Amino acid sequence: MSDSHKEIRICFIGESFVNGTGDPEFLGWTGRVCRNAESKGYAITHYNLGVRAETSRYLKQRWRSEVSYRLPPEHDGRVVFSFGVNDSGWAGKQQGIELSESIANARSILTQAKQLYPILMVSPPPCGDVEQEKRNQIIANLSQEFALVCNELDVPYLDVFSSLLKSPTWLTEAKANDGAHPKADGYAEFAVIVQNWEGWLNWFTP
Amino acid sequence: MSDSHKEIRICFIGESFVNGTGDPEFLGWTGRVCRNAESKGYAITHYNLGVRAETSRYLKQRWRSEVSYRLPPEHDGRVVFSFGVNDSGWAGKQQGIELSESIANARSILTQAKQLYPILMVSPPPCGDVEQEKRNQIIANLSQEFALVCNELDVPYLDVFSSLLKSPTWLTEAKANDGAHPKADGYAEFAVIVQNWEGWLNWFTP
Repeated sequence: MSDSHKEIRICFIGESFVNGTGDPEFLGWTGRVCRNAESKGYAITHYNLGVRAETSRYLKQRWRSEVSYRLPPEHDGRVVFSFGVNDSGWAGKQQGIELSESIANARSILTQAKQLYPILMVSPPPCGDVEQEKRNQIIANLSQEFALVCNELDVPYLDVFSSLLKSPTWLTEAKANDGAHPKADGYAEFAVIVQNWEGWLNWFTP
Repeated sequence: MSDSHKEIRICFIGESFVNGTGDPEFLGWTGRVCRNAESKGYAITHYNLGVRAETSRYLKQRWRSEVSYRLPPEHDGRVVFSFGVNDSGWAGKQQGIELSESIANARSILTQAKQLYPILMVSPPPCGDVEQEKRNQIIANLSQEFALVCNELDVPYLDVFSSLLKSPTWLTEAKANDGAHPKADGYAEFAVIVQNWEGWLNWFTP
């Protein structure tokens, strides 16, 4: 970290898609967007706090302790949230959160977080399995509701769901893998959407 | 994650060297060793719980909640610890732990952890700055004491300190960077030492 590089510490927090589950390159979309920012002259500390099977109910309980432990106030710390697929009930047990609760959880988490750090929110991605069409409908609906919450709270929101639903790479890889998680190419595509997003780019303007 | 792949979830926990701080490729040594295991036919979920400035005193307080949240008992979950550089006082504030406390903290953490998961311990690496020679002597001493604790508890222990102290790549990169953290080549070298270690390889035998 030379002095000429702006140092930023970023927590990415949410579910398995934040973790990068399924990516044999172990970067996921979060590692790729940090690599891209680093190549532009920033010194990024990347904290990946994605947890498999996470729902908004559990995220609400844990985000603050894990994030505040990593982002002491004397450093430039920021947070990117992304969750919702498990709220739709994808992985069964302890999942399947009512829409009204998901919305309330998102509002609570984001309201608290934005008082403490610069924050961004990225929508949940679609599942790849065509038999999950009903699930994708639930995720689409959740994404729209999260967009409204973010608009209300003035939190930048990125809808990756709509983009990835049109992506043969994401859907084909996810279907061939486990029905949900893609491999390297899918995560690379996710990363490109994020790193071209105004909300993300605004974090890296001089 | 096809059914033919053995699924393993691994938490890597400790300080900035576990986080991979300084690596412009955002893999660190932990991402690289997971990528290597994945290439051999395993489906690895990689949880990186390295936190900058972490000491054994704080690790002792947080490891269990963060690890148990990620490793539910129905999955094959394992833990790799690596800490000690900050106990030596590298980063100043809230650091610099007495040797006797570091040893007691390590014993407490490892005793609890081994009752819950298969665990491994990797020594702290050396600092790259030659002016930190006294610091490296403290880390060397700590590493030897951790080896004794691990031997006593029957926890596999890897001394990367001695190997990296002889590594021009590690020392030169770390010195040119911030005096402590290397860039990609240093972390790649660290990863090779781990992935050739019997303790790690024993986790991946049929």
